Amino acid sequence: MGRWEPGATQRLVVAAVDLFNEQGYDATTVAQIAERAGVTKSTFFRHFSDKRELLVAGQEMLSTLLADGITEAPTGASPLAAVAAGLERAASAMGPANRELGPRLKAAVAASTELQERDALKSVGLAAAMTGALAARGVPDATAHLAGELGVLAFKRGYARWSETERDEADELAPHVLAALEDLRTATASLGVAGP
Amino acid sequence: MGRWEPGATQRLVVAAVDLFNEQGYDATTVAQIAERAGVTKSTFFRHFSDKRELLVAGQEMLSTLLADGITEAPTGASPLAAVAAGLERAASAMGPANRELGPRLKAAVAASTELQERDALKSVGLAAAMTGALAARGVPDATAHLAGELGVLAFKRGYARWSETERDEADELAPHVLAALEDLRTATASLGVAGP
Repeated sequence: MGRWEPGATQRLVVAAVDLFNEQGYDATTVAQIAERAGVTKSTFFRHFSDKRELLVAGQEMLSTLLADGITEAPTGASPLAAVAAGLERAASAMGPANRELGPRLKAAVAASTELQERDALKSVGLAAAMTGALAARGVPDATAHLAGELGVLAFKRGYARWSETERDEADELAPHVLAALEDLRTATASLGVAGP
Repeated sequence: MGRWEPGATQRLVVAAVDLFNEQGYDATTVAQIAERAGVTKSTFFRHFSDKRELLVAGQEMLSTLLADGITEAPTGASPLAAVAAGLERAASAMGPANRELGPRLKAAVAASTELQERDALKSVGLAAAMTGALAARGVPDATAHLAGELGVLAFKRGYARWSETERDEADELAPHVLAALEDLRTATASLGVAGP
C-alpha cells in the first residue's frame, strides 16, 4: 500500500489551477502538476485518472452532500426548505482553500472550452443530484426539477459572491448561498404569467 | 466558391448521429460521416470544423431565435411572457426532422461523456442567451437568471415530450414547450419557503 500524503488532493488541485492559468490547460502536463504540488506522478495517479478528472474532484463529494442534506431534511419541510438544507450541508464543507480557488478556477475555465464543457456537466450533475433527492421525498416531477435548478443557481451565485468579496476568515459560504436562494425565491414572484 | 449542397447540413447531422449510435462517438470518423451522408470530406469541412462541432450546429441558431423572440416581445410583457415569445420563435423553427433526431441524439449523448459535456455546455449557452436578452429589457439580475433557466428547462421538457409522443405530422413543438413552461410556472407556487 502506498503512503498516504495528507492534503495531496488539495495541493494538486491548487497546483493544476495555477498552471492552467499561467500556461493554459492544453499545455499543462500531469508531470508539471505533480512537480508543482511537490508529489510524484504516481501520487497524482493515485488521486486522479487524468488532469481533467482533477477538476471533477469536488463534484462527487458535493453531489453527495447536497443529496444527503435534502434526504435528511425534516419530513414536513417544503421543497425549497429541503434544498436549503442540502445547500447548507454542502456549503459548510467549503473552507478558505475553496474560497481562494474560486477566482483562479473561474479564470482557467473562461480560457478553455474543454474546461467550460466539464464545468457545465458538473452543474448538470449537481442539479440531477438535488432533483433525484427531492423526487425521492415525493416532490412532483416539475417542482423537483425546478427546485434542483434553483439550488444550483443559488450555489453558483452565492459562491461567486463569497469568493469575490473582501476576505474575512469568519465569513462563511453558507449564508451567501442561502441569501442567493432567497433572492431567487423572491424573483419567482416577479416572473409574471406567460400569456400575453 | 464551392457549390452549395442544399440540405447537406441536415444530412450530415443525421448521418453522424446514426453512426454515433451504431459504433460509438470515438470510433466514428469524419470520412465515415461524409460517406454516409453522400458528400465529400471537403463538403463536411465547409459545414463543420470537426465531428463535435456538428452537434453544436443548431445551438447558435437556437440561441439567436430565443434571444430575438425575447427582445421583440411587447414592451409591457412580463419576464415569463418574453421567455414564452422566445421559446415560441425557436420552437417554430423545429420540424419533423428535428423531432426524429431527438431520441437518436439522446441515445448517442447517453453513451458518451464527451457528448454529455458538449450537450451541457449547450444548455448553459441557451440559458445565457435568454438571460442576456432579458437583462437588456431591464429585467433585474436574479429574475433574468431564473427566467433563463426556466426557459431552458421548458424547452428540454417540451422537446422530450414532443419527440417521445406518437408521431403526428400536425403536432408541433411550440405547444409542448409552452405547456412545459406553464407547468414550471405553476410549480413555483409549490416551492414553499426556505426557512424551517
